[in-house]
Amino acid sequence: MKTYDVVIIGGSAAGITTAMTVRKYDATKRIAIISDVENVPIPCGIPYLFGTIFDPMKNLLPISSIVSANHIDWIVDKVTKINRDFKLVLTARNQSYEYHELVLAMGSYPLIPTIEGIQSENVYTIRKDPIYLQSIMNKLDSISRLVIIGGGFIGAEMAEECRKRNKDLEITIIEMQEHCLQMVYDSELYDKAENALRNQNITILSQEKVVKISNHNHYEVIQLDSNKTVEADMILLCIGCSANIPLAQEAGLKIGPTRSVWVDESMRTSDQSIFACGDVCEKKSFFNHKPISTKLASIATAEARIVGANIAQKKRTMSGVVGCFSTVIGGKTFSAAGLTETAAKALGYSVVIGQSESINHHPGSMPNAESLYVKLIFNQSDGVLLGGQIYGPSSAGELINAIAVMVASKSTANQLATFQFATHPALTASPIAYPIVNAAEMANQILN
Amino acid sequence: MKTYDVVIIGGSAAGITTAMTVRKYDATKRIAIISDVENVPIPCGIPYLFGTIFDPMKNLLPISSIVSANHIDWIVDKVTKINRDFKLVLTARNQSYEYHELVLAMGSYPLIPTIEGIQSENVYTIRKDPIYLQSIMNKLDSISRLVIIGGGFIGAEMAEECRKRNKDLEITIIEMQEHCLQMVYDSELYDKAENALRNQNITILSQEKVVKISNHNHYEVIQLDSNKTVEADMILLCIGCSANIPLAQEAGLKIGPTRSVWVDESMRTSDQSIFACGDVCEKKSFFNHKPISTKLASIATAEARIVGANIAQKKRTMSGVVGCFSTVIGGKTFSAAGLTETAAKALGYSVVIGQSESINHHPGSMPNAESLYVKLIFNQSDGVLLGGQIYGPSSAGELINAIAVMVASKSTANQLATFQFATHPALTASPIAYPIVNAAEMANQILN
Repeated sequence: MKTYDVVIIGGSAAGITTAMTVRKYDATKRIAIISDVENVPIPCGIPYLFGTIFDPMKNLLPISSIVSANHIDWIVDKVTKINRDFKLVLTARNQSYEYHELVLAMGSYPLIPTIEGIQSENVYTIRKDPIYLQSIMNKLDSISRLVIIGGGFIGAEMAEECRKRNKDLEITIIEMQEHCLQMVYDSELYDKAENALRNQNITILSQEKVVKISNHNHYEVIQLDSNKTVEADMILLCIGCSANIPLAQEAGLKIGPTRSVWVDESMRTSDQSIFACGDVCEKKSFFNHKPISTKLASIATAEARIVGANIAQKKRTMSGVVGCFSTVIGGKTFSAAGLTETAAKALGYSVVIGQSESINHHPGSMPNAESLYVKLIFNQSDGVLLGGQIYGPSSAGELINAIAVMVASKSTANQLATFQFATHPALTASPIAYPIVNAAEMANQILN
Repeated sequence: MKTYDVVIIGGSAAGITTAMTVRKYDATKRIAIISDVENVPIPCGIPYLFGTIFDPMKNLLPISSIVSANHIDWIVDKVTKINRDFKLVLTARNQSYEYHELVLAMGSYPLIPTIEGIQSENVYTIRKDPIYLQSIMNKLDSISRLVIIGGGFIGAEMAEECRKRNKDLEITIIEMQEHCLQMVYDSELYDKAENALRNQNITILSQEKVVKISNHNHYEVIQLDSNKTVEADMILLCIGCSANIPLAQEAGLKIGPTRSVWVDESMRTSDQSIFACGDVCEKKSFFNHKPISTKLASIATAEARIVGANIAQKKRTMSGVVGCFSTVIGGKTFSAAGLTETAAKALGYSVVIGQSESINHHPGSMPNAESLYVKLIFNQSDGVLLGGQIYGPSSAGELINAIAVMVASKSTANQLATFQFATHPALTASPIAYPIVNAAEMANQILN
């Protein structure tokens, strides 16, 4: 039996970042990561395997350089049991590891709905497994009709990448909600995203629920609750993820309202020697501190930096999920941070909206000038920024992070209007038309 | 005589933004802008005329659409006198305009050092005048040796744009300091900038002071204090600007320590009915509230939004100059916000530095992946972010604005390390390697 100061279960974004953070603040602690896979895909890169990167081995976390630079023991094995009384984990290879502090970072697995026929051999999920991902790509190259169930980020990115891979593939997205991506963007953005998908000859069937899948040997017939049917040679399930809790559950750790491992604001579970971070653990909204099920690598790493610091006695707490994400559809960037207008209203806020459309260079005669749209959502009662969305060129991917910081800092519309921003003809909108400022000023006309 | 609620002298970034801000908050005020030029160049775009845009008429503020959309009277005339007793301005065309509130936004003019021979016909400044700028371009096309005096932003941008315009031109920058751009960047960036200039066959003579310019008909001989001489067919002065204060001075308004119009934190001059904003007025540092002479369109517009709001009875105050700027040299972006390490030390701060170099996409196998370097400067005593610099791809131009917001919000290294940032394979570094976070964590290892 080997003894470690810190044993981390799971070697993806959360586990790796926890280990690196502990090491930053403590040179001596003995740290082990136990991963049930040797090669860990970069989760956000998975859709881009299909039409851009192609080789799953080119989308891996650089585990060997990270573990050697940080003096971490990397153990490929599967934890089968946590013994809290003896502070041990037991593995499939019959090893046991003693921990002083244990970190649960075993992530999530794809949600599989309880639909008749869902277990068919032509139904695939997006698993974080390079070999499985390669098998999906192989299959894709032999079919003519792909159906993606779920029109969120992963579904939209997968549809576009499969289109890049194969110009002739029939691609259909089936989405339960009225619009793809409506959980993360307001209509100003999701309308453009849906149009960009349709322009790539991707069919969107919205407000449609799958009730049954029937196997016909080499293809499936998908029965929708509208009574429509869709034929598919291959079905990709992109409807989200569930926290990977069985091990924690079996160990008697408290499970929270979103079926994830409960943690306090220090990211400690109901056992003071066990932390959790990433997709496996419960999250609370930054805004109302109520449970929220958003799962993002950027949240996982923020949580991991809190866990790692707390293990190294550098006290940190989690202020809740802000929710910051970007994607690219049809060559345009769609970014969001904080609450959408719809989400803010659903939480009971009276909101004031500011919007601005400007050119991302100045003057507009500069090469590659493109339009950039910003929407900001403020709390009417105090003018505090609740969220923002951007549609436009790739610079939106970092501009959204200025908004993310303003949301996290609870900046007001009045502050936004007088912040100083770096501008440059080839890089940004002009200082007269800087979109965050102008959107804030629009809101200020209504606020107080 | 015509009467206005608000008369603004100057129609560039500060004047235009003041007028637009007043109009946002007050639909009824009668507003006039008096501009001594009909066509107002976009100031930051001027260098890009030379090798990118070419036509000065394609680098103009869209005055006509702004004034008509905002119901502003645009008067092309030159104010010759301010009569504070009668609250009047008098003009070169013998007009007089009565004001309730006057805004001084007449900007700055290029600094001309007192050097023998500086008035030679081959010595040019960068004036905000399309006709004059066209004449510089015409001249440039007929010469073979260009000397730029001053290696700050404008000098560096002018050198690169003149190189784009003419591959065979001999271009030399003469800089008094040890390095070009050393007032705005630390060595990690200015070394790269100087190399990028030299790689374009631009000669840099640093730590050299011009002592005399001798005219030899069609060319000039520049005498340096090292006793070297440099021949030039054309000399461009790029050594900065002076506030355009004669009118204010003559009107008896208080002038501040940087020879600019004194203002209080509401941007009011020593006359309660007169505001000033932009290059013409005194500025204070955000950090120590001492006078500072930084002149940027992004500061001017932030000040103008304070003036405009205060005129419309929506009280705002200026918190001081943060100093946010970007440029592009050799295809790479150089961005800064707040204090450099050198400047922070000069102000007496004990600083802690964090640095991170990462790839701007993830995985690194994504197309167009490039390295991105971030340096952060923290105050050792409280961990508050004092400044940041970025070198890398064009996304740095907006990423610096996340840093600008964190500086303005006085965020700590610990906050930076746990902020949530939007990441995406095609747009940003990975959440594990997000450079702001990792640079902050490096500083956190030293802080407390």
